[in-house]
Amino acid sequence: MDEKGNMKTAPVDGIGQSLKNKAENINGLLAGFLPKEGGEQATVISSVNYSVNAGGKRLRPILLIETNILCGGGGMEDPLVAAFAAAIEMIHTYSLIHDDLPAMDNDMYRRGKLTTHAKYGEAMGILAGDALLNLAFETASSALAKEGEPKRVLAGAKALSILSVKSGLWGMLGGQSVDVEKTGQSLKEGTLDFIYRLKTGALLEAAVMVGGVLAGIKEEEVKLLENMGGAIGMAFQIQDDILDVTGNDEVLGKPTHSDEKNNKTTYVTMHSVEEAKEAVKQLTGEAVRILLKFDKKRGRDANFLIGLVELLSERES
Amino acid sequence: MDEKGNMKTAPVDGIGQSLKNKAENINGLLAGFLPKEGGEQATVISSVNYSVNAGGKRLRPILLIETNILCGGGGMEDPLVAAFAAAIEMIHTYSLIHDDLPAMDNDMYRRGKLTTHAKYGEAMGILAGDALLNLAFETASSALAKEGEPKRVLAGAKALSILSVKSGLWGMLGGQSVDVEKTGQSLKEGTLDFIYRLKTGALLEAAVMVGGVLAGIKEEEVKLLENMGGAIGMAFQIQDDILDVTGNDEVLGKPTHSDEKNNKTTYVTMHSVEEAKEAVKQLTGEAVRILLKFDKKRGRDANFLIGLVELLSERES
Repeated sequence: MDEKGNMKTAPVDGIGQSLKNKAENINGLLAGFLPKEGGEQATVISSVNYSVNAGGKRLRPILLIETNILCGGGGMEDPLVAAFAAAIEMIHTYSLIHDDLPAMDNDMYRRGKLTTHAKYGEAMGILAGDALLNLAFETASSALAKEGEPKRVLAGAKALSILSVKSGLWGMLGGQSVDVEKTGQSLKEGTLDFIYRLKTGALLEAAVMVGGVLAGIKEEEVKLLENMGGAIGMAFQIQDDILDVTGNDEVLGKPTHSDEKNNKTTYVTMHSVEEAKEAVKQLTGEAVRILLKFDKKRGRDANFLIGLVELLSERES
Repeated sequence: MDEKGNMKTAPVDGIGQSLKNKAENINGLLAGFLPKEGGEQATVISSVNYSVNAGGKRLRPILLIETNILCGGGGMEDPLVAAFAAAIEMIHTYSLIHDDLPAMDNDMYRRGKLTTHAKYGEAMGILAGDALLNLAFETASSALAKEGEPKRVLAGAKALSILSVKSGLWGMLGGQSVDVEKTGQSLKEGTLDFIYRLKTGALLEAAVMVGGVLAGIKEEEVKLLENMGGAIGMAFQIQDDILDVTGNDEVLGKPTHSDEKNNKTTYVTMHSVEEAKEAVKQLTGEAVRILLKFDKKRGRDANFLIGLVELLSERES
């Protein structure tokens, strides 16, 4: 990753550059939804803004918006889509802040910057995470409350329900809780699969599902998108495991072989690098096959999303 | 408070008994929205249920439901009202769990029981709080997504927006962040007022506003309810300060004079017990005057809510 936290591909080809531009657009969009600095509660507001502005690939909002466009929606131009895109990145950021806390992974740095609790203290770290989870629902529900058209309000309510389910006990948080609980223990295959599916996969599922739902697609198509998000998430996580073994510290921006040092069960330790690479290839193929079902169905092509999914499977950081 | 955490009045008069019954109803209602024990994420689910079932006055859901009925709504019989009532208690519980964490107030006991982090460890304490904040929005938005009538969906979206705003940076969490930050410092009157208004007041405002909005009342009436909730919250907090000075440890269920020992600025240290009592009386009168505007307007009387507000101002625990 570069210093702005955007993904760097070597060489920065068409998709890579396009992704970089889209991440910049998301940064602009987020700025419009973040709290204004100042007031009595200036410190917690500053910690919230610091955390969101620390960078990142902005993968979830990009997936949400691009899937919305593929499904015939208005993308970032649609205020409801824009609000949900900001909301999902807030949820992702909250999860990183709380994962980094001393009682969890106890990480002092992320993307080369001090983590939120390292900079603002532990109490503010907890509150900044809480504030962002809350702000996500505030952002999405306030956009929803401004809608007038019944069909759109109903779609928004469904999207909100999906986003919250996929973030909670039966999604990201449930996966994280098992990951934390099993730290230092060797895992059974089913448990590893559960953690990957929920901790990483669920929010990616939410991203593409919400994008589709806000475009008004049918239940069966939402289900297809859910499968696609799950495949992308699983491939992403396995690729992380591979990079921890085969990656370059400098390109990766963090030390490799950390899983080995921590005796961590990963897809690679459970299988092999070769099998892991094969799994990433298969999962990526699955996601692409689903995307092809949406390709040109509503006059929009799936080229960018297909390119993005393939790029993720080949990423070196 | 008794062993179930319900408010005990001496003597348990009509309102007191009625309040006890209503709290039991809320316990039943919550049971229907809490996650089923078991599964891979059994520990975090157990910590969530432990926290909610540790008891409490259930003041916020009772206020929400009773205000809804006063405004012509269906109360607990309305699935949307029931979901929001459960959601607001989940938000209240999450805030207590996180307030008790070692990095915050570091409390090992609440209502005579181990706090969540004391029982399940700090990581699970953080996650249980996160899970409940998330579950609150999941509960409300999932009920909303099941609605078909556009008017009700719009009212629900507005209620969700109110609930999230009043819980977040411009509400409860904002107040808590300033309280945490100023711990051990003497406060200016404006800051004390800010903390009381946001930390305690905002969620009580949300309770009555959401109750009204889900009954379909107009904007001006929602504003009146907001003022009422604010008055109840401020009176409640000042009464807490009074009881810390004049209360009985045994009746109160916690040691008195803790504010003095901690050099804490309170309404009583800033004014006097007499002035504080006068303020509680005035604020209670203000809340009652607003309730009288709703009394019999839609064929429902405000007797219970008036009794509740007066009981709160005379409480000894």
